[in-house]
Amino acid sequence: MSVAKEFELANDKYSAGFTKGDLPLPPGRKVAVVVCMDARIDPARALGLEEGDAHVIRNAGGRAADALRSVIISQQLLGTRELVVIHHTDCGMLTFRDEDLRKKLQETTHVTADHFAFLPFADIEQSVREDVAFFKHSPYVLDVPTTGYVYDVKTGAIRKVEDN
Amino acid sequence: MSVAKEFELANDKYSAGFTKGDLPLPPGRKVAVVVCMDARIDPARALGLEEGDAHVIRNAGGRAADALRSVIISQQLLGTRELVVIHHTDCGMLTFRDEDLRKKLQETTHVTADHFAFLPFADIEQSVREDVAFFKHSPYVLDVPTTGYVYDVKTGAIRKVEDN
Repeated sequence: MSVAKEFELANDKYSAGFTKGDLPLPPGRKVAVVVCMDARIDPARALGLEEGDAHVIRNAGGRAADALRSVIISQQLLGTRELVVIHHTDCGMLTFRDEDLRKKLQETTHVTADHFAFLPFADIEQSVREDVAFFKHSPYVLDVPTTGYVYDVKTGAIRKVEDN
Repeated sequence: MSVAKEFELANDKYSAGFTKGDLPLPPGRKVAVVVCMDARIDPARALGLEEGDAHVIRNAGGRAADALRSVIISQQLLGTRELVVIHHTDCGMLTFRDEDLRKKLQETTHVTADHFAFLPFADIEQSVREDVAFFKHSPYVLDVPTTGYVYDVKTGAIRKVEDN
C-alpha cells in the first residue's frame, strides 16, 4: 500500500471527529514559525499549537531565505506580527556541502546542477542567528519580534539562542 | 507575553514526556509531504503522522516550485521515495494576484518588489494538478509515486485529485 493510501485511511478517522470547521483564515496567534522539514519534529505537539493558531513554514534546514515568499504573504495578507525560527540538532544540513550534493544530483539525474544553492550550514547555533538576522535585515520583512531556537531531537526541548 | 514565550512553556511539558529520542534521521515511511502553511491544517493529526515518519515541507500555497530544494535534499540525501502534495479550500493564494501583492509590499516597505513571484492560483484543483506535474516533469526530482489532494478546511477531509 502506498503511504498516500495510508494517509487517506488515517484522514477518514481525523475528519470523522473534526470539530474545527469554522476557523478564520488569519492565524489566531498572529505568529509564523519557520522550522526544518525533519521527520522527527512535530511543531504542533512540540510548541502547543492547535489548528488555527499559526502559520507553519517548513523546508530543509528551516532556512529563512527559502521562507521569504511565505513570510511576506503571512505578514502582508494574513496579519502575523511575530516570527520564530527553529533549527535542530543532528540536522541533515550539517552533513554536506553544496558541491557534494550538486555532484550527486548530476550523477543521479544526468543534468547540470551547478546553479543550485542548497543552503547547508556547519554550525547549528550560527545558522539560527543568521536566519534571525536575515529576517531582521530584510527590507521586505516587517520589524517584528523574532526569536530563534535550537530543537534537540534527543530530548524534544527547544533552547533559545537569539531574541531580537 | 510573546508567543515565543508561550511556545517555551508548552515545550517544557512536551519535552518532559518525550520518549522519542532515538529516532533515525531518514524518514521512516520514506515520504515527503508538501502542504500549505495555513494555520488551520495540522498535517500530523490530519494524516496520522508520528515523529520520525515523514518530511513535511510547508509554504504559502504548498507550491512545488518553492519546495524543490527541500525535495531534492529529501530524496538524494535522506531516501524518500514518495511525494504527496496537499492544497486546500479557502486558501489565501486564491485571494490575490502577483501585481496586487507587489503593490502592497512596495507601499509598506518602500522598496521595489517587482521581481517577486508569489505563486498565487485561481483554481485549487488545477494548482494541485500543476504541482504534481511540476514534480513529475522536473529533471531534478526522482520518478516516484506522487499523489495530489485538496484538504477541506470545513471538514478536515482530504480528497484525491491527482495520482501519478
